[in-house]
Amino acid sequence: MKDSLHQHPSKPRSKAEIQATVNRLKRIEGQVRGIQKMIEEDRYCVDVLVQISAINAALKKVGYSITERHIKHCVSDAILSGDGDETIEELMEVMKQFSK
Amino acid sequence: MKDSLHQHPSKPRSKAEIQATVNRLKRIEGQVRGIQKMIEEDRYCVDVLVQISAINAALKKVGYSITERHIKHCVSDAILSGDGDETIEELMEVMKQFSK
Amino acid sequence: MKDSLHQHPSKPRSKAEIQATVNRLKRIEGQVRGIQKMIEEDRYCVDVLVQISAINAALKKVGYSITERHIKHCVSDAILSGDGDETIEELMEVMKQFSK
Amino acid sequence: MKDSLHQHPSKPRSKAEIQATVNRLKRIEGQVRGIQKMIEEDRYCVDVLVQISAINAALKKVGYSITERHIKHCVSDAILSGDGDETIEELMEVMKQFSK
Repeated sequence: MKDSLHQHPSKPRSKAEIQATVNRLKRIEGQVRGIQKMIEEDRYCVDVLVQISAINAALKKVGYSITERHIKHCVSDAILSGDGDETIEELMEVMKQFSK
Repeated sequence: MKDSLHQHPSKPRSKAEIQATVNRLKRIEGQVRGIQKMIEEDRYCVDVLVQISAINAALKKVGYSITERHIKHCVSDAILSGDGDETIEELMEVMKQFSK
Repeated sequence: MKDSLHQHPSKPRSKAEIQATVNRLKRIEGQVRGIQKMIEEDRYCVDVLVQISAINAALKKVGYSITERHIKHCVSDAILSGDGDETIEELMEVMKQFSK
Repeated sequence: MKDSLHQHPSKPRSKAEIQATVNRLKRIEGQVRGIQKMIEEDRYCVDVLVQISAINAALKKVGYSITERHIKHCVSDAILSGDGDETIEELMEVMKQFSK
């Protein structure tokens, strides 16, 4: 995969933002461990699939909130500097991958 | 949500099957922790989104392999016992949720 | 793409089933024409995207009802004849494609 | 559904753009008619599902190109006028719907 345009967001995430996102990811990590336990207990396939769907939905939610922040800061700043196109194309690429 | 039809697969998962699936889920758990680290290091939004897409893809893969086993055993056994319909409808419900 | 396993469903669709599905597809065809008109009238991008999402949802619904019928007849009949595996693998392939 | 923010794109689509998009939609309309024919000929479920997946992919492609143009013009112009937030939130809403 080719390199992305930056190393960091154009506006650094605040401590509170970082904490909130990490907390959501910790809950998702806990959900993934929950499925491991379900498999070890040989639980019914449909119940496992329901849990996998829930994790996918939770990850999508995190992804959308990262995308919204990305557009409000990184993409907006690029547009205001007069070079939005490359950043918008990078966004489209990752959106196509993300919504598969 | 209404209860699912069973507590366990109609044919128990073998130790090897359980181990293989748990290993895949442990890798996914590691990937989720990796994203937490990326957020803590305030890494670029697009790079985080690429990783989230990779986790979603890995979870889908686990989900599809659980679905295939479910059809080959639980659904097939229900059909052979002459009452496939309820099990097929349960499968359709979870498939719709899973592929959102 | 490789050939699929059959030319026709194991149990032919009734005239009523054919008519109902064709009617749903005719409505979808009308919706696609509706978007052409929106583009010709240079309508707002978001309104066009809402309509495209509606068509995708309608097509998925038709797809799920075809899948359910497929499992209840073609897949079930294959399982009852003792050779479900190939049919189940074919089903998984098309499900992965369909839920992208 | 609540009203969207505008009636038209901030920069009108050119005749060439309109024609290109309408042509793609006409091909999709033809594909939908193709599926009607397949149903009338009682064709195999998996073959119908493959075609439905192809239409969904083609519609997504049109949707992504409309989204990209939307961000490059309507969203960018809103950001340059200093009121990007509402437009970005509208975009996020439709993206969530579109990628279901």
